[in-house]
Amino acid sequence: MGQHVFGVDIGGTAIKTGLFDMEGKLLHKWEFNTVKTGDGRDIIKSAADFIKDKIHELKLDINNIKGIGVGIPGPVKDNGEVQELANLGLGHFNIEEEMERLTGLKVKAGNDANVAALGEIRYGSGKGFKSMVFVTLGTGVGGGIIINGKIHAGSNGAAGEIGHILVDYGETRLCGCKKKGCLEQYASATGIVWLAGQMLARSDEASALRSLNSISAKDVFDHAKRGDALALKAVDKACRYLAIALSHVAQVVDPEAFVIGGGVSKAGNILIDTVKKYYEGYVMDSLKGKEFRLASLGNDAGIYGSAGLILASD
Amino acid sequence: MGQHVFGVDIGGTAIKTGLFDMEGKLLHKWEFNTVKTGDGRDIIKSAADFIKDKIHELKLDINNIKGIGVGIPGPVKDNGEVQELANLGLGHFNIEEEMERLTGLKVKAGNDANVAALGEIRYGSGKGFKSMVFVTLGTGVGGGIIINGKIHAGSNGAAGEIGHILVDYGETRLCGCKKKGCLEQYASATGIVWLAGQMLARSDEASALRSLNSISAKDVFDHAKRGDALALKAVDKACRYLAIALSHVAQVVDPEAFVIGGGVSKAGNILIDTVKKYYEGYVMDSLKGKEFRLASLGNDAGIYGSAGLILASD
Repeated sequence: MGQHVFGVDIGGTAIKTGLFDMEGKLLHKWEFNTVKTGDGRDIIKSAADFIKDKIHELKLDINNIKGIGVGIPGPVKDNGEVQELANLGLGHFNIEEEMERLTGLKVKAGNDANVAALGEIRYGSGKGFKSMVFVTLGTGVGGGIIINGKIHAGSNGAAGEIGHILVDYGETRLCGCKKKGCLEQYASATGIVWLAGQMLARSDEASALRSLNSISAKDVFDHAKRGDALALKAVDKACRYLAIALSHVAQVVDPEAFVIGGGVSKAGNILIDTVKKYYEGYVMDSLKGKEFRLASLGNDAGIYGSAGLILASD
Repeated sequence: MGQHVFGVDIGGTAIKTGLFDMEGKLLHKWEFNTVKTGDGRDIIKSAADFIKDKIHELKLDINNIKGIGVGIPGPVKDNGEVQELANLGLGHFNIEEEMERLTGLKVKAGNDANVAALGEIRYGSGKGFKSMVFVTLGTGVGGGIIINGKIHAGSNGAAGEIGHILVDYGETRLCGCKKKGCLEQYASATGIVWLAGQMLARSDEASALRSLNSISAKDVFDHAKRGDALALKAVDKACRYLAIALSHVAQVVDPEAFVIGGGVSKAGNILIDTVKKYYEGYVMDSLKGKEFRLASLGNDAGIYGSAGLILASD
């Protein structure tokens, strides 16, 4: 039996775990609910216990486990320190040290969006690129910067926080980060629904969206694809904001490619095409013509990328 | 006699050259006019000839010259390729290979702002930091991103082009880059003068600037320091635009520090303080409290950083 690594993706509702071989091939995949005791250390312990159980169950030799990669929803410094994760009930502590103590294995932790970015560049849509910027459009908007094949975490673990780039100077609503006018307020699933809602409320324009009891981001995209003019305008505006933010990213890091994932990215080509159209108008000539791709690992990007934290450190 | 490196800073009007020891100590410094034959290769040749002359003149042993670092005003790829430098009369070619052929020495080239950034982090205001973003406010606005002590040049050599980050969506004037609303249109020396000019033209507000025949960026800052309300507003607006752009930079790369150089930075603390004030309102909590410093190497940043290209590659 060869060597293995575990990839763990800790989220607010579920913890996903994968067992990989040293080539990054996914051999087993599990998912269980995140424990909600209010103390985040219980979450870390439950993940550690789960892995120890699986090692026992699959009769793996612990000496052949090269380590555990962990993705968590918040900033992680290069040394494994997390600042505060209110949503997980975690204060300031070192997740790598804690989990190493609990499992006896080498642990490397990263921010979930950064880790998903690593997953996409090593095993997904970004394969073959050396530098890539990943954007995840879900309930919120996250991002990850890959430079020379590695995560660029930043001095406080806050690099790639693309969702909180200021894109609208006139916004009055507060973002979750306490600022106003962040990309996340327009290009997340919630943001797109808000944009469509504003357009519906502020005009009498006919739209199939008016007949729906509640509107999802998918509805907005679906109706846009069918030619609904108002839905198209909402999609256009969300994509324009995203293009503005990605133009800033390009002017700063000049990556080879952009990969867009998260639930909203299921909208497909309409998203990529609209973002790309606006992007070209917002960057210098030498930054035009970048590759824009849809993510391909879906919900598994996190476990692939977590495993990649161990595999990439070899 | 120990080992040495040359640092060369090629500009549109002058070529600066420095001879350094292996600790980065500047031993000699020269400057001569950029040749203007219209063919950029003549510029490269003049720099190569100058260095060969100096080696001869100073009786240096060519075997003890570790190499030549060169900064040029345009994007340079990691392999030494420049795309096109219309201002220097240079087409697409490899500056490192050309200069190595002419001198028989190892050559490493970089974009001038990137190289100045390297100079500041190794020998100037950025000393002690591992990651730093340098902004140069002169006739134009340039920038350089340092990650793990090294220049991040980007896939097309266009990383750190902070001057062309879009900061005003309503601009109608064209920037030199053919876009509209770039940071450079407001935060360069020319931009600050334009901002003040607009404010003078659009109001009857009293201002000491009205008595000047022509206004320089220095005039605007000097009068702002003396309390001239209109000049203060122009400074405030330029600094707010710069803070917006630096907030984007922070959200993307999360550096330890920002260092601001170029002619405009001679304005001093008023610049740093105003930028910092606005910056804090545009970034997430975990990106607040960054170090903002004035550059300290002045016009020598380029030769220091060019030499650093060779010294850092050891």
